[in-house]
Amino acid sequence: MKLLAMIPARLGSKRIPKKNIRILGDKPLIRYAIDLALASNEFDSVWVNSESEALGRIAVGAGVQFHKRPVELSSDTATNRDFTTEFLNTHDCDFLVMVNTTSPLLRMETLKAFCARVRENKHDTILSTLSERAEAFYHGKPLNFNTNEKLNSQELPPIDLVVWALTAWRRDTFLALQNSGKCPIFGGNIGIFDMRKDEACDLDTEEDWRIAEGLMAARCLNKRAQYYDI
Amino acid sequence: MKLLAMIPARLGSKRIPKKNIRILGDKPLIRYAIDLALASNEFDSVWVNSESEALGRIAVGAGVQFHKRPVELSSDTATNRDFTTEFLNTHDCDFLVMVNTTSPLLRMETLKAFCARVRENKHDTILSTLSERAEAFYHGKPLNFNTNEKLNSQELPPIDLVVWALTAWRRDTFLALQNSGKCPIFGGNIGIFDMRKDEACDLDTEEDWRIAEGLMAARCLNKRAQYYDI
Repeated sequence: MKLLAMIPARLGSKRIPKKNIRILGDKPLIRYAIDLALASNEFDSVWVNSESEALGRIAVGAGVQFHKRPVELSSDTATNRDFTTEFLNTHDCDFLVMVNTTSPLLRMETLKAFCARVRENKHDTILSTLSERAEAFYHGKPLNFNTNEKLNSQELPPIDLVVWALTAWRRDTFLALQNSGKCPIFGGNIGIFDMRKDEACDLDTEEDWRIAEGLMAARCLNKRAQYYDI
Repeated sequence: MKLLAMIPARLGSKRIPKKNIRILGDKPLIRYAIDLALASNEFDSVWVNSESEALGRIAVGAGVQFHKRPVELSSDTATNRDFTTEFLNTHDCDFLVMVNTTSPLLRMETLKAFCARVRENKHDTILSTLSERAEAFYHGKPLNFNTNEKLNSQELPPIDLVVWALTAWRRDTFLALQNSGKCPIFGGNIGIFDMRKDEACDLDTEEDWRIAEGLMAARCLNKRAQYYDI
């Protein structure tokens, strides 16, 4: 089964300016996705999909491929659907795994477990999710709990939130939907892949960047618990 | 309007052992809630509600009151409802604001905004929530999105998840429900108070502790963004 990794990256990100080249820990953000995908040995090839020659040089320097996206697919209005279609039209594979640069805390074991799910070949689309067990309100109304009763959070039905850290698409299904004018992003039989909270951070705002920075620092420290002397 | 702050704290926490006296940054966890509630000047009095004399000494040493909870309300099976009822039966107020020690990242401006909501006097119960704008699955089915269409996350209807960082109850409503055998936790007219993601961390697992540690480190660092030289 042929798996390709695609790492989409723009130089002109909006909410966190130039986030892909911003230094997190000891390297630019984009290197986390590149280094992890490459070291996993799960992929026939790993591609950075970008309009930017500068990001392309980082990709090639780090040992992966550069797919230069047409400039019209790099605007703020161009969608994931657009550039993924363009990529799949020029690259053959069974499954495409999109590794987002916005989840630098992703662990190797998680990426490998995700690829194992892909290789089970049971789904056309696999979305990474975060399972939240908390009382939830939806449109202002209780969703998964009853106000007449307080349950422990473990007893509440979870809400699974898509985090876009990892996404897999079966190429055939994706392109068939796209070619028939349908939305291919949630195509066919959808599977969800539950991730750990501390690696599912999705860098979207400056606040998220601080969380990632913090997690990174804490992971490196890995210090022993200390207690107040009572 | 008379507001009391109640900080519930057990010494024998389970999932993160002895978390209330575990050192986070430069002080034991429980001190974050105590110091913030006291410095806010929002409360007629601030109480640590605990079975533990040791936590009581920390409370008194930090300048707040100690409400010694009966030992039978400190077991793993005793509920928030039980110890809050016991507290309200012995303390008069208009509203009780529960400040959980599990949200050490809470900011002063947030606590003050929450208390301002309480003083509006429009709700009987106010719950702190985190607004999540992401595609959500509930019982395995898409909840707030349609698989035929990919929207930007900002366009998705949010899911508001209760975080229990701050909770306010109108004393009269709470006790009336309790005395009539009904669940008082979600009593009367419920309001939700949206919090920022980086202060809503709810310390429940070792993973959460690492997130808090990281956020704390990142807040102190507050360093300027650095970029890879392209």
